[in-house]
Amino acid sequence: MSDTDFRKMVGEKIKGTNASLFLSKCHYVSGAYDCLKDLQSLSTACEQLESEKSKKGANRIFYLAIPPSIFESAAASIKLGAMTTNGWNRIIVEKPFGKDLNSAAQLENAISQYFSEDQIYRIDHYLGKEMVINLMVLRFANSMFEPIWNRNYISSVQITFKETDGVEGRGSYFDEYGIIRDVMQNHLLQILSLIAMETPVSLEAEDIRNEKVKILRCITPLTRKNLLIGQYISDAKGKVIAYKDDQKGGVKKDSLTPTYALATVYIKNPRWAGVPFILKCGKGLDQRKAEMRIQFRKYPTDLFPKLNQDAINELVLRVQPNEAIYWKINTKAPGLSDSIGQSELDLTYRSRFNIETLPDAYERLLLDVMRGDHNLFVRNDELIAAWKVFTPILHELEKLKVKPTLYPFGTRGPEGEVKFLTDLGVIRTASYHWVNPCD
Amino acid sequence: MSDTDFRKMVGEKIKGTNASLFLSKCHYVSGAYDCLKDLQSLSTACEQLESEKSKKGANRIFYLAIPPSIFESAAASIKLGAMTTNGWNRIIVEKPFGKDLNSAAQLENAISQYFSEDQIYRIDHYLGKEMVINLMVLRFANSMFEPIWNRNYISSVQITFKETDGVEGRGSYFDEYGIIRDVMQNHLLQILSLIAMETPVSLEAEDIRNEKVKILRCITPLTRKNLLIGQYISDAKGKVIAYKDDQKGGVKKDSLTPTYALATVYIKNPRWAGVPFILKCGKGLDQRKAEMRIQFRKYPTDLFPKLNQDAINELVLRVQPNEAIYWKINTKAPGLSDSIGQSELDLTYRSRFNIETLPDAYERLLLDVMRGDHNLFVRNDELIAAWKVFTPILHELEKLKVKPTLYPFGTRGPEGEVKFLTDLGVIRTASYHWVNPCD
Amino acid sequence: MSDTDFRKMVGEKIKGTNASLFLSKCHYVSGAYDCLKDLQSLSTACEQLESEKSKKGANRIFYLAIPPSIFESAAASIKLGAMTTNGWNRIIVEKPFGKDLNSAAQLENAISQYFSEDQIYRIDHYLGKEMVINLMVLRFANSMFEPIWNRNYISSVQITFKETDGVEGRGSYFDEYGIIRDVMQNHLLQILSLIAMETPVSLEAEDIRNEKVKILRCITPLTRKNLLIGQYISDAKGKVIAYKDDQKGGVKKDSLTPTYALATVYIKNPRWAGVPFILKCGKGLDQRKAEMRIQFRKYPTDLFPKLNQDAINELVLRVQPNEAIYWKINTKAPGLSDSIGQSELDLTYRSRFNIETLPDAYERLLLDVMRGDHNLFVRNDELIAAWKVFTPILHELEKLKVKPTLYPFGTRGPEGEVKFLTDLGVIRTASYHWVNPCD
Amino acid sequence: MSDTDFRKMVGEKIKGTNASLFLSKCHYVSGAYDCLKDLQSLSTACEQLESEKSKKGANRIFYLAIPPSIFESAAASIKLGAMTTNGWNRIIVEKPFGKDLNSAAQLENAISQYFSEDQIYRIDHYLGKEMVINLMVLRFANSMFEPIWNRNYISSVQITFKETDGVEGRGSYFDEYGIIRDVMQNHLLQILSLIAMETPVSLEAEDIRNEKVKILRCITPLTRKNLLIGQYISDAKGKVIAYKDDQKGGVKKDSLTPTYALATVYIKNPRWAGVPFILKCGKGLDQRKAEMRIQFRKYPTDLFPKLNQDAINELVLRVQPNEAIYWKINTKAPGLSDSIGQSELDLTYRSRFNIETLPDAYERLLLDVMRGDHNLFVRNDELIAAWKVFTPILHELEKLKVKPTLYPFGTRGPEGEVKFLTDLGVIRTASYHWVNPCD
Repeated sequence: MSDTDFRKMVGEKIKGTNASLFLSKCHYVSGAYDCLKDLQSLSTACEQLESEKSKKGANRIFYLAIPPSIFESAAASIKLGAMTTNGWNRIIVEKPFGKDLNSAAQLENAISQYFSEDQIYRIDHYLGKEMVINLMVLRFANSMFEPIWNRNYISSVQITFKETDGVEGRGSYFDEYGIIRDVMQNHLLQILSLIAMETPVSLEAEDIRNEKVKILRCITPLTRKNLLIGQYISDAKGKVIAYKDDQKGGVKKDSLTPTYALATVYIKNPRWAGVPFILKCGKGLDQRKAEMRIQFRKYPTDLFPKLNQDAINELVLRVQPNEAIYWKINTKAPGLSDSIGQSELDLTYRSRFNIETLPDAYERLLLDVMRGDHNLFVRNDELIAAWKVFTPILHELEKLKVKPTLYPFGTRGPEGEVKFLTDLGVIRTASYHWVNPCD
Repeated sequence: MSDTDFRKMVGEKIKGTNASLFLSKCHYVSGAYDCLKDLQSLSTACEQLESEKSKKGANRIFYLAIPPSIFESAAASIKLGAMTTNGWNRIIVEKPFGKDLNSAAQLENAISQYFSEDQIYRIDHYLGKEMVINLMVLRFANSMFEPIWNRNYISSVQITFKETDGVEGRGSYFDEYGIIRDVMQNHLLQILSLIAMETPVSLEAEDIRNEKVKILRCITPLTRKNLLIGQYISDAKGKVIAYKDDQKGGVKKDSLTPTYALATVYIKNPRWAGVPFILKCGKGLDQRKAEMRIQFRKYPTDLFPKLNQDAINELVLRVQPNEAIYWKINTKAPGLSDSIGQSELDLTYRSRFNIETLPDAYERLLLDVMRGDHNLFVRNDELIAAWKVFTPILHELEKLKVKPTLYPFGTRGPEGEVKFLTDLGVIRTASYHWVNPCD
Repeated sequence: MSDTDFRKMVGEKIKGTNASLFLSKCHYVSGAYDCLKDLQSLSTACEQLESEKSKKGANRIFYLAIPPSIFESAAASIKLGAMTTNGWNRIIVEKPFGKDLNSAAQLENAISQYFSEDQIYRIDHYLGKEMVINLMVLRFANSMFEPIWNRNYISSVQITFKETDGVEGRGSYFDEYGIIRDVMQNHLLQILSLIAMETPVSLEAEDIRNEKVKILRCITPLTRKNLLIGQYISDAKGKVIAYKDDQKGGVKKDSLTPTYALATVYIKNPRWAGVPFILKCGKGLDQRKAEMRIQFRKYPTDLFPKLNQDAINELVLRVQPNEAIYWKINTKAPGLSDSIGQSELDLTYRSRFNIETLPDAYERLLLDVMRGDHNLFVRNDELIAAWKVFTPILHELEKLKVKPTLYPFGTRGPEGEVKFLTDLGVIRTASYHWVNPCD
Repeated sequence: MSDTDFRKMVGEKIKGTNASLFLSKCHYVSGAYDCLKDLQSLSTACEQLESEKSKKGANRIFYLAIPPSIFESAAASIKLGAMTTNGWNRIIVEKPFGKDLNSAAQLENAISQYFSEDQIYRIDHYLGKEMVINLMVLRFANSMFEPIWNRNYISSVQITFKETDGVEGRGSYFDEYGIIRDVMQNHLLQILSLIAMETPVSLEAEDIRNEKVKILRCITPLTRKNLLIGQYISDAKGKVIAYKDDQKGGVKKDSLTPTYALATVYIKNPRWAGVPFILKCGKGLDQRKAEMRIQFRKYPTDLFPKLNQDAINELVLRVQPNEAIYWKINTKAPGLSDSIGQSELDLTYRSRFNIETLPDAYERLLLDVMRGDHNLFVRNDELIAAWKVFTPILHELEKLKVKPTLYPFGTRGPEGEVKFLTDLGVIRTASYHWVNPCD
């Protein structure tokens, strides 16, 4: 593919007044990731562009979204063949970061042979979401959350990532990893650590990541009784085929890979001991949304005996779609009656802010790589600590060939979900539905 | 005036489909409040109506909005001449409840000679406001307020009642009482006690009033250094005459009566010790509004050094006009920047609830009298405790002939206000203005 | 009996230098409590003494430790025949204050016919104990208890009153009342209300009693599943006869009266909701002691995995014998080892204070009656609220003829005790024994 | 000096049954620290002993209590000439760790060239004191401290190290360093970080030191207005000469070196923001003692108006002499009076534990080096963070030639101390003196 072909291909997706300027800066060099010679060619191509365009430092970012199997050799090739000496070199690494503790450690060893930690940017694009970035501001630039942000007042925290899509046609990767590795161990655990972390010394990347690691290290490894796994089957109308029937898409026959998982983890520290952090993710569900839901304990008296049992306070941070923060509260129903209704203190982004569209998480993260800001990237020890939480259960599931509970495509997930949550004391607020004020 | 005349007069203000039905139930009997014979005539008239309409119990409410001077004799006349024996008798008493501790005690003695406390309904119509009634629900049916509702987290509480009107033409009553007696000692102090009170044993009237009295008794009497008084003068354009020039309206020449007052009181109990409760009220000001404004301490670190000094959290309960609850918070400005802006978690009634109009405070309170619910009425010992807070300073102002600071009609009040508040650590959020989402 | 005989009898118990002076002030008038004429004679005798000794006010205290059956007529006789008009009259009332809610209300009606509440001193001599009086000082003159004095940090409160004696020979009174009425409903519940109450507005009697009543009203009536009752049988050596065999002493044959009771009550308010308050009392037990034991939750992490499971913090206030306050803490064992032992922060009275003997509770209380201080006496509404907690269960026990669990005299009580406490999460610190530093 | 001479010299200080066994293991090799050849001789001597005594691993500890000037060359000589290859090598480093940030950084660079951080044991012998080690247990194995261990309830923390000795004869070292470098920057700041740190993830050395560093990094550099320095002069009787007259002992003429310092530092984090941590140390004072004194805020009401103004709660941890923990509390004075006195909840080691003598701090620390436990040693980044707090003020004092306030030997220190403390709100409890129960 020539530069022209490449620009044509890319150009189809790019609009706006500066599109052609942008495209003129796009070049394409073909080669195998793990071939030293090809990387040297890439480097030569770069040098040519650099000499043309600038006398100043020429920096390079290598974005590795490649199969784990060739990771080490690709890293070696870059190191030996493609690094600039006239500026900085940065390496973006995409998941999967291994399949378990051992494989992740091997991968880390491989990469750390060639690059130093400050050159490496492990990307978890959930950390680039508007509402996730906002967590630091909400928690540490406001004074009303800190005093209630603990086991005395919070009864549970739910972090949810639901997708309506299945894996149709993309099963070969997914089937090997499953939803726990694909979503829970990274995206959900990263969000958890931001919700739960202590105030850092500063907002520098190392200080924030120090605190995140502390949280991850305080989590007891997940056990069977705290986990519910599911796999979707065909939907009621039979339009979507069952996950395990998708051999064309790459799913193994009789696959036991979960497409849904619900897990409770506990953080053994003074702030959170005993509070269930409930991680929920799945494909082929009824709804597409990602959110954090912090449920507060009831007011400890019975002054309002008629109050619904589900009239508890919840702080919801909606990540996508339609970013919003809302805090469910009980208020007197306006007027002469003395009945109490649930309402909310609301901050819906599109209703409050004059925004057309928010930048995509990747835009933000790539910008941060250019700025050299590691804040929103995963550090080596975070990764290891995260794997320690999930590796024992992943091995157990595989060894014992545990069967996931089946659920029809397009539903809320396996039947056991309600009981699982109720047993944890989670209250489902059936009598209340948030209405997006923008709708 | 005959019943017909009376109905005609009243009927001019009454609309709606049931207006004529309502009017048919209205009757008029003329007489002097303090004349036993006239009250007996009233009683006779009542009995006639009662016998016509019902065999069941005939209840009577006596609404006393009369000058204090004839209070005792009116009470005696009612007691001796107009009480039903075929149902309950209830007495609504309108302010003023005396001019100071002694006169209030005298009035109470007079009334308690003739009526028992459970027959008496001292009305403070602010207690009938939607948002004021809601305070009990907000505080005790939600769990997130209680842990932060104290001196550790709240830096100040402001209770404000501003009017744009002056006293034109109604000066004879006002000039004798002044703004402290007319608004602060009753309306503002009542709201204060609802904000500050401990959780009651139940929501029964006596339990709530027990807690309110406790708060009032913990307040140290107001002193000079915690008080700023003002009096309005003519406005810039000269359209409104200065308060003290309104002799036609009943104001005494060279009157020192304040039309504005700003006071700080302290509640000496474990929850509130050291927290300034700032009461502000005035006539002839720039704005008409009544609200409670709870200001929170800053988050105790410097993680966000660029944060505006005034970017603190405030919970605002707007009583009138346009009922709303909003909690000012700091959030990340949406988008690629990392700057922080102030926004709010909002619950604006007209935007959230499907309401045309809320009932007037008096509608609610009169209904409560009929239902025999004392909850929103002032108890004898509350009244006495409230007078204890203000009586010493009122006497001192009068004895020393303290001159109020002058301020032009239609402005924010006396100049000293800003310094007064700043000295208390109150932060005026100049960089932020709440925008009513309904506007 | 003449004055001389009376003095001789009393004198045998009285020692010290002022004994004869004291005795010379003692007089004796014989009569029936409920006989108006006899009371008039008493009054005449008093007047004689008063006229001799003083021209000033002559005050009278009537101390009623009489059977409930003649209570009303005795009160009437005093009222009509023996009140001074030249000073104050005060009535001390000894328990039993009724047998249940109804009988207590009747008694109260009877007494309130003749005396006003401020003349009445209902005595509960436990309120006169040094350590019980100290509770107000400890809680409200020290700042370190208040923040941890609540459900977030306290796991349980035990109030214990154990006696080694049985009821030999005094069974006729006891058998009718039983240990719940004799000890739990008054002594233990009074101590509970002092431990649990909120900060009063002042230390005036009415303010303290207002707060105590609030606590009592927040207690849910005791139910069967929260109660364990026992009755002692003969001890191992057979020296003491079983309770129900003491017909000579007045015990009814086949009596079901409990000599031991263990009950858990809950206070439904924001400070205490969910915390078990465990009341324990019994006769014929292994130990004589009265104490309050406040058990704290564990530190919510696992930093010291070798720490004994029973190494929790307890604050113990020992009422009798040998007054002491001690707070069990974990400290590093001194020396090179890193093991942790339990020790205590200790304040043993006899070791710290230079005291020979502390005044008896009755000395203190009688002095308070003379001073007119109601602080340590039980108010009418307290009494009623206390009965409301116990009346339903007392009636149920009687109606269903519930059999108490038997336990041998001189032991710890019924076997079920350990399970009862363990089920509540109470930790018995088996590995630790407090050693009185004075022994 | 031969081994025999050495053993004779050492033997004079050693007693006990195992003295000769111990001495038989002592050897002496003479040489210059910074001479490679001499260190090689030492190594040869070691090897000889090792081959004689053991076939197993032969470990070596090098204890560097040497002048900073030859530090680097000594480190090099050890590295090149004296390390075992048959076991571990550990380096103990004694203070001074530099004179300021730069010199400390240089020293660290020098040492880290030759040794890895896990081989280095920077010794601060205060970390080996019984009560200092106990801090971790007290704070994290007991649940009653954590909830009150913060700015809401603690008003100040004082860490004090007072000596009665002057520097007679040892002035040459001291005069160059002064009391801030000699005591405050290391001993007192180390204790501060243990008092103030958050709960670590585990009790592993790195986790604890991570938390200590966080505290140090949150401290704002010390400024002039938060510092009082003093220098002793001759005592009243003229027996001790003034510090600056001790030229024989090595003090420079007109020396401005402080022998006393009192400093306030603030920790800018959510737990401690605004709480003064007061560091006090000095030589030639009235008393020899080291202690931590945690002062609590007053109970926030006025229920006991007669309570002394200084009757606040203090938790005192006495490090030396005579280890003790005591918590000053207010209790009712026993007996009929209602007055309140100050007493204490006490745990005096010698009174409670059966101990003859506690091990010296160095015994403990040397044992820990042998065990390879870094917990009680100072990490590189701690050292740097500690210097950041004091370097600016040390440079300022030197540049501006600030004169210390003079105080007579054997007194409490400079006069300004009382005002300095009072301005911080510290309350000196004049009416109360702790009496050691062992005296």
